[in-house]
Amino acid sequence: MERIQTVEVGSHVGERMCVAGWLHSLRLMGGVCFLVIRDGWGTIQAVAESEAELDALSALQDSGMGVESIVTVEGLVVSQAQAPGGVELHQLQIEVIVPVTEVPPVPLNKRKISASLSTLLDHAVVTYRHPARRAVLRLGAGVMAGFRSTLMARHFTEIQTPKIVAAATESGANVFKLDYFGRPAYLAQSPQFYKQDLVGVFERVFEVGPVFRAEPHDTTRHINEYVSLDAEFGFIENHFTVMALLRDVIAGILTTLNEQYHPELELLQVQLPAVPEQIPHIHFAEAQELIFKRHATDVRGEPDLSPQDERWLGEWAREEFGSDFLFVTGYPMRKRPFYTHPDPQRPEYSNSFDLLFRGTELVTGGQRLHLYSDYLAALEQASLSVEPFEWYLEAFKYGMPPHGGFAIGLERLLMQLTGAPNIRLVTTFPRDLTRLTP
Amino acid sequence: MERIQTVEVGSHVGERMCVAGWLHSLRLMGGVCFLVIRDGWGTIQAVAESEAELDALSALQDSGMGVESIVTVEGLVVSQAQAPGGVELHQLQIEVIVPVTEVPPVPLNKRKISASLSTLLDHAVVTYRHPARRAVLRLGAGVMAGFRSTLMARHFTEIQTPKIVAAATESGANVFKLDYFGRPAYLAQSPQFYKQDLVGVFERVFEVGPVFRAEPHDTTRHINEYVSLDAEFGFIENHFTVMALLRDVIAGILTTLNEQYHPELELLQVQLPAVPEQIPHIHFAEAQELIFKRHATDVRGEPDLSPQDERWLGEWAREEFGSDFLFVTGYPMRKRPFYTHPDPQRPEYSNSFDLLFRGTELVTGGQRLHLYSDYLAALEQASLSVEPFEWYLEAFKYGMPPHGGFAIGLERLLMQLTGAPNIRLVTTFPRDLTRLTP
Repeated sequence: MERIQTVEVGSHVGERMCVAGWLHSLRLMGGVCFLVIRDGWGTIQAVAESEAELDALSALQDSGMGVESIVTVEGLVVSQAQAPGGVELHQLQIEVIVPVTEVPPVPLNKRKISASLSTLLDHAVVTYRHPARRAVLRLGAGVMAGFRSTLMARHFTEIQTPKIVAAATESGANVFKLDYFGRPAYLAQSPQFYKQDLVGVFERVFEVGPVFRAEPHDTTRHINEYVSLDAEFGFIENHFTVMALLRDVIAGILTTLNEQYHPELELLQVQLPAVPEQIPHIHFAEAQELIFKRHATDVRGEPDLSPQDERWLGEWAREEFGSDFLFVTGYPMRKRPFYTHPDPQRPEYSNSFDLLFRGTELVTGGQRLHLYSDYLAALEQASLSVEPFEWYLEAFKYGMPPHGGFAIGLERLLMQLTGAPNIRLVTTFPRDLTRLTP
Repeated sequence: MERIQTVEVGSHVGERMCVAGWLHSLRLMGGVCFLVIRDGWGTIQAVAESEAELDALSALQDSGMGVESIVTVEGLVVSQAQAPGGVELHQLQIEVIVPVTEVPPVPLNKRKISASLSTLLDHAVVTYRHPARRAVLRLGAGVMAGFRSTLMARHFTEIQTPKIVAAATESGANVFKLDYFGRPAYLAQSPQFYKQDLVGVFERVFEVGPVFRAEPHDTTRHINEYVSLDAEFGFIENHFTVMALLRDVIAGILTTLNEQYHPELELLQVQLPAVPEQIPHIHFAEAQELIFKRHATDVRGEPDLSPQDERWLGEWAREEFGSDFLFVTGYPMRKRPFYTHPDPQRPEYSNSFDLLFRGTELVTGGQRLHLYSDYLAALEQASLSVEPFEWYLEAFKYGMPPHGGFAIGLERLLMQLTGAPNIRLVTTFPRDLTRLTP
């Protein structure tokens, strides 16, 4: 008999059907045996009651059928209000495909997975089988799907750019160095230069891919390899055009999750935020004034916002606009990379922004320089030599429109949506100062 | 006036509309000036005829409006059978956003782009603006979209796995080595181990991401970083289940290209192949017998097929089945990686396959071992120590179903579909023995 998915069983009440998967749990209660089968999408309960069924089960257990064994279970689909999901299988025929006798490093069939962070990570290839851990990764797939579909509907072209590069992308610091056939090369910190150059080809581009940061930080918010959701597009007015797109992208991601990832959201008890039609925004300088007025803390003149400043601004956005989201615009030029476009009115400030979500930075973006002469001036200002950037700047010699973009860190977004206390908990297989496996 | 895309102009005959983009070409013929504007999606012709228009154009040219300048052009949309696309703009108002005076390294407005390979690659950030070069990259986006949509419709989950790894993935040879905070680490040659382990979580997974091969080959078919389209799934019967999925994935990719990338296919004069409902297949040993009979060349006993063997088999598949595609199954175990599942009947052969397209290998795949004890034996057989694989093998201790998968090289597929003579011509920014930029 061909197997169906566990999540399909509910629409076959009264029929004999076959499921296959992992033996998620097995317990005997008052002469009745309850089995739960887990497949790639959900679980289904199966109930053995007759003497023959129970004898067969005993024999299977004796021959090594412990939890996580690969099994197929054929049975009659029966409505049962008390069963999880409202249906269960009766009159079972069970076959063991792969017996498992070893006990998993962490119980996978408790409602909550309780293990230390290092146990969860060391044994990730197994601990991800727990439905709650699995749901986190699947939300990541949903974020990628929502990102892509929103942009493809807006005529963006997907690109894939090289991760081995000849020189550091932005700052020159914190890059991983590798041996490229005897020459030094580096891992890309971002697809920034490539996505800009390809705006000259496609106007609107996006990429979903790994980026690498050799930052020696050991915090709950840093990892050294992560997935960056990058977008860049031309013919913008200024950074506000970019912010409007980002608003739609965030809304598109959340809509995708709401519509297609409901079981995962429910399992993780995630309440997705609402995205206002217009996300409120405040200029960096006004934000510092506001903090001075509301909190009697004078951060005016500081070149950046502190985490505390961001929290205060997040509170203000919630009180004032009822919004979990807030754009802070116009960060000082001196804290932004050389390709940042200045504010034409106040050139010490930039046409850039951060998107704060509940008082924490979620996305950075902005308008970029588009004139070749401006790049030469900006590199000189930053005391950077032109030579390593020549290939990148060639696009600007031959006409680039006003353009801008943003980069969303997949894991940062997942961390904030799910309220995870550590980014490692929402990173498929995290890389940090000490961790290179699994 | 808000701009529209060049490809939308045709549906606005009789209206005044605005387009923006690059000045693709400009030529004066018999007192009439023809301009072509290129945006991210297509081109549109604009015609200046009146004295006022021509004077305005002259002034713009004098002030630096050469080809590739960023311009906006407003005009009346007029049906014109001779115009490319059947419409053109009249009564023009032209504004130069970014003047360009430098002449591009390669003419971008001829029907064919004629330049040496190294010129095309050295100046790729500009040469991709040529519609024919751009179309190649856009087909790549179509391949990725078709791959994903086919698999998502079959309930596959998208994964993103780390590219910095502690040990070489498969062979230990030909990996790029990097300095990871003072420790050695490597760039992943494939997501093989991760995708298998995640079959234990999701059953069906796919990934689109970069892979890295430090192969010192200087050929028209090798690059050192490429995009791998990986799929892996559980509860298969054997490699024939994998081949059936691969058939559907290839068909899904070609359908996506046919339906959504028609202008690019037409521009590149690509005739997409038909995918038979059942792709014919031949066992490795029979293939060698066939070559002996048809070509009087005795390759029986060779552990692999040569390029000439593959071409002969491709010819045979076309003659015998009218098919551009052919599966060769059962490659000898000794040429396949340690995780390959043997043929239970003839253990010297494997449950693996290559998919040949027009006589060239396009995809490799197969069934993998799924029993922990088989892995221990296979590693011993291959004289590999268990230790570097312990994290990977943990999944097999706790129950893995029979599973398999395949990997499609994006650039190899594009090369064969477009008939490109060199893989560098279909790789966004190729990395080879000497090339690290752009």
